[in-house]
Amino acid sequence: MRTIGVVTSGGDAPGMNAAIRAVTRIAYSKKYQVYGFERGWEGLITNTFKPLTPRSVGGIIQLGGTILHTLRCPDFKTQKGIRKAAKTLAANHVDGLVVIGGNGSFSGALELSKITDTLTVGIPASIDNDVYGTDETIGFDTAVNTAVVEIDKIRDTAISHERVFIVEVMGRTRGFIASTVGLTVGAEIILVPEVKTRTVSILKVINENSVKGKKSGIIVAAEGIGDTRALAQEIEKKTGSEVRLSILGYAQRGGSPTARSRLLASLFADRAIELLSQEQGGKIVGLKNGKIAVTDLKESCEKEKPLDLGLLKLAKVLAT
Amino acid sequence: MRTIGVVTSGGDAPGMNAAIRAVTRIAYSKKYQVYGFERGWEGLITNTFKPLTPRSVGGIIQLGGTILHTLRCPDFKTQKGIRKAAKTLAANHVDGLVVIGGNGSFSGALELSKITDTLTVGIPASIDNDVYGTDETIGFDTAVNTAVVEIDKIRDTAISHERVFIVEVMGRTRGFIASTVGLTVGAEIILVPEVKTRTVSILKVINENSVKGKKSGIIVAAEGIGDTRALAQEIEKKTGSEVRLSILGYAQRGGSPTARSRLLASLFADRAIELLSQEQGGKIVGLKNGKIAVTDLKESCEKEKPLDLGLLKLAKVLAT
Amino acid sequence: MRTIGVVTSGGDAPGMNAAIRAVTRIAYSKKYQVYGFERGWEGLITNTFKPLTPRSVGGIIQLGGTILHTLRCPDFKTQKGIRKAAKTLAANHVDGLVVIGGNGSFSGALELSKITDTLTVGIPASIDNDVYGTDETIGFDTAVNTAVVEIDKIRDTAISHERVFIVEVMGRTRGFIASTVGLTVGAEIILVPEVKTRTVSILKVINENSVKGKKSGIIVAAEGIGDTRALAQEIEKKTGSEVRLSILGYAQRGGSPTARSRLLASLFADRAIELLSQEQGGKIVGLKNGKIAVTDLKESCEKEKPLDLGLLKLAKVLAT
Amino acid sequence: MRTIGVVTSGGDAPGMNAAIRAVTRIAYSKKYQVYGFERGWEGLITNTFKPLTPRSVGGIIQLGGTILHTLRCPDFKTQKGIRKAAKTLAANHVDGLVVIGGNGSFSGALELSKITDTLTVGIPASIDNDVYGTDETIGFDTAVNTAVVEIDKIRDTAISHERVFIVEVMGRTRGFIASTVGLTVGAEIILVPEVKTRTVSILKVINENSVKGKKSGIIVAAEGIGDTRALAQEIEKKTGSEVRLSILGYAQRGGSPTARSRLLASLFADRAIELLSQEQGGKIVGLKNGKIAVTDLKESCEKEKPLDLGLLKLAKVLAT
Repeated sequence: MRTIGVVTSGGDAPGMNAAIRAVTRIAYSKKYQVYGFERGWEGLITNTFKPLTPRSVGGIIQLGGTILHTLRCPDFKTQKGIRKAAKTLAANHVDGLVVIGGNGSFSGALELSKITDTLTVGIPASIDNDVYGTDETIGFDTAVNTAVVEIDKIRDTAISHERVFIVEVMGRTRGFIASTVGLTVGAEIILVPEVKTRTVSILKVINENSVKGKKSGIIVAAEGIGDTRALAQEIEKKTGSEVRLSILGYAQRGGSPTARSRLLASLFADRAIELLSQEQGGKIVGLKNGKIAVTDLKESCEKEKPLDLGLLKLAKVLAT
Repeated sequence: MRTIGVVTSGGDAPGMNAAIRAVTRIAYSKKYQVYGFERGWEGLITNTFKPLTPRSVGGIIQLGGTILHTLRCPDFKTQKGIRKAAKTLAANHVDGLVVIGGNGSFSGALELSKITDTLTVGIPASIDNDVYGTDETIGFDTAVNTAVVEIDKIRDTAISHERVFIVEVMGRTRGFIASTVGLTVGAEIILVPEVKTRTVSILKVINENSVKGKKSGIIVAAEGIGDTRALAQEIEKKTGSEVRLSILGYAQRGGSPTARSRLLASLFADRAIELLSQEQGGKIVGLKNGKIAVTDLKESCEKEKPLDLGLLKLAKVLAT
Repeated sequence: MRTIGVVTSGGDAPGMNAAIRAVTRIAYSKKYQVYGFERGWEGLITNTFKPLTPRSVGGIIQLGGTILHTLRCPDFKTQKGIRKAAKTLAANHVDGLVVIGGNGSFSGALELSKITDTLTVGIPASIDNDVYGTDETIGFDTAVNTAVVEIDKIRDTAISHERVFIVEVMGRTRGFIASTVGLTVGAEIILVPEVKTRTVSILKVINENSVKGKKSGIIVAAEGIGDTRALAQEIEKKTGSEVRLSILGYAQRGGSPTARSRLLASLFADRAIELLSQEQGGKIVGLKNGKIAVTDLKESCEKEKPLDLGLLKLAKVLAT
Repeated sequence: MRTIGVVTSGGDAPGMNAAIRAVTRIAYSKKYQVYGFERGWEGLITNTFKPLTPRSVGGIIQLGGTILHTLRCPDFKTQKGIRKAAKTLAANHVDGLVVIGGNGSFSGALELSKITDTLTVGIPASIDNDVYGTDETIGFDTAVNTAVVEIDKIRDTAISHERVFIVEVMGRTRGFIASTVGLTVGAEIILVPEVKTRTVSILKVINENSVKGKKSGIIVAAEGIGDTRALAQEIEKKTGSEVRLSILGYAQRGGSPTARSRLLASLFADRAIELLSQEQGGKIVGLKNGKIAVTDLKESCEKEKPLDLGLLKLAKVLAT
């Protein structure tokens, strides 16, 4: 009998539970036992875990959040913390550790992997989609759809009041959510950190739209572009028309995962357990060109995933 | 042949289109023709309207917003503006005017009714539910459900991260949305403008919950209570734990109306046209004790609707 | 210390969990302990229950179904079964029993109340809304909204294909769901068991609509009207046009309860516990004229709740 | 100035409107004018179309159905019908025709392409996902999510009543919807036409689950497997336990498209117009290995898209 540990770390993402369930059930089908470390890295430092079984992960595939909880864990950023975690793994004879999380979690996993014999495999789960080594993270599709449904509602009001709305979506320092959401809600303007946009260009588009008879408009802005409140005020001042700001908040992180987020969770877990059963560690799984693929954990931590600027170009044409 | 005008004014509310459809079709069934004034009171000042027919209002019952649009209209707050509106009604031989909106719209309607022979009937439509003369406004149930669905998602993250979240909901100066939403999401604390709550009391509840093992919590706050950002920072400072703020924005105003908002729209419109057909004006229709009832427009404008404090008391027991 | 039992029985309805939570927490606030009997009446016959505490009913307000489960229990229809249940109540010193369910559950409760000293109070929970003594049951609003959302989607296809659709909704032998859903989706025709409609009348409406240019149409039919498949075929034969049938199934019973279903659950539970604390039994709580009210259990079992035919009349005018 | 025609044909799929919008706006950006043929192939036979402009396709990206309507058109299956369509294209100087639809539509387009100079490009839109040449069709993701949301609700009732439910999903003769839905709702059993499953195997799984303590269960069955009603009765007879059947109907075809369905619609349209601008016809666009790709129309019509049996295998492990 061998043992696999699983931990969810960093910001939660819809589909983490589907991944926990899949990791557990697939591991059991291969005769592993599974320990679920609780509250992110803290569980590894404090040696807090619960055994996960096929029955104990029943009825969670559709739930948002993570049954293992996830906390920020400053201790894990210290060598002392990482050494404690390594000891926990050794003490419990954990042969393989599945880390479900985003960039930050993978950096932690990389540090840990340097001082432990436990093999580490990462499953990318983050609404932000900013993980190198996968075209899509678990939770991204859900967050995007949550934002799209919200903005479809805001558009009702925008049209009724003939107003311009700025809608700030999540995405940390990147524009993945903003660009996909912007294109799919038909936003007039999309603002992402990767492309600097001057206010004068925004005003030009608003003006042109007004001339075309488009009196309302949706500007989708990534949180990473900076102060959207100030932007709203500036546009209001320059155009003389009311501009409303709506910051789509933490609802983007929660909710029942979409089919796609659940599917990715299941496929990623399948490959992750396969890697561990082949004694491979120091990897992350991911989706590349429509197929499940594997990337070195180190490479994932070091490289930055590029944003598809083609989407933004297409969105501009579609917003005419 | 006689003529009924219809106008949507003030903030939009889901179900306004259902009301426009019902007003039009019921009026036609009684052999009236219907003019839809566009962009709120502005349409009355500028004499801008379109004829509405049973066919032209087809396929709108499920749409958020208002096909007649609605704007703030500062001109209508002047005597000159109101006189222009009265002239528009006279020039087009409008015998009855149905005003679909909230408090502000009804105040406007009251002023107008003083200088026109056109009979005026109000249909209360506002997400805020703050209209005297009706237990429920069109759009309130939809806004409440939108907020509840959002907060159910936020709770996923709150539980996963074991954090306290403050969620600010709409409601202008009143706590109707906050109290119903707070009770139905199982909020630990509900803050409304009608009941002053000291921060020390909030901290006490958070503390007690922490002792009970409730590490996460949802505080639902009405926008009318003031600066929720400052409150979040204060609680954070005093508890030493992270507190997150999520301001549910304009999505609460939009979206497809719930069955209940559509039903109220239809029932209100039915009674409104009945009143006009009986040559009665200066009234608003509403829901009182589960039945459709009529209140004087003047009374509705002058009195303040009380908040049911029993709900807040019950919510406190339920949050134990 | 005194003891309250709670049981969910009959078909499940969204909001039953909200009611269980409210019963438990309100009872605790009055120093009662609470036993949750499992699997409907079977739990009373087999003496199977679990203690419910404010903590154990946490995190369920938003869940469909019932954490206490509910089964059909033929044994409870026998005197022997009912006697066993009475013994269970006596053996566990249950002073008050809250029965959450519909008509059938209340009939069982009435029989039981005849041979036990335990006070019995019913909380009406049923998607069908067919309980005498309340204008609305817990779960009705949710089921209606689920059906409305579905039919809004079906309308997309109906319009695109210019076809007539028959949509069968639940409601057992009654037309409460069908009439409210029909009105609020703007159905061209509503068929309920309470009003016999001849096929020739249906064909007449379809014909008239076709002349008016309405090529698609939605017929909302209560399951209680009989064989909708045969009806679809007959209309198809007589009109020469394709007619599609969609039977909205068990999804109407499930899903997260709407705010209104949660609110009713909380208000009903509050009054139910108040009744028990006043040593009153043999009652059901309900909503009458917008207020929480009480009806004799016997009366509720014996009388039939009338359907509001005014809604159907209004729906006909609105479908023009 | 050159002209592009667009037609939606066959069953409607969510995202068709997003595709119409994208085709129109991208075509305009390249200085084409666009004609929208109405009611599927019938519009080509009867020469019925409307000019589409960037403004006239505004506000439709989020709508289900198709603003161009789509009908079955038996005439188009005759040589006479196809010749008429070719004449319509010639008479209106249509240089390129974009056909938005599924297999049947593409067969029609292939026949038409043999006798017209108009270049034809297909955009795969079908909830069934059964088009060779693309890994995913427009509308598939939406239909899958609609089914998943429904089944999540049905699971509430299944668990509460400890019953087995068979849920029939769409997919015509194929199992694409069933296999993705089955995996992502955590179905105990998935039945698709591509894999014959004997009732005895189904009974075995139900039995094993019962032994494991799984009293409820979801069987997801593709409509293509045959009579699900008979299957339900057979299982009921053989197990002695109630089995409920729910046929998810036409709602799967409608509703607001998911972000992914909208995104595919936009990307497919972009490539389709690019092909036409390069004077290439007789092609379909599609998604292959995560990229937009092109396939010969003839090949798409002649080859059958394989079902990923790996998904079914994984689903089996995940259902343990």
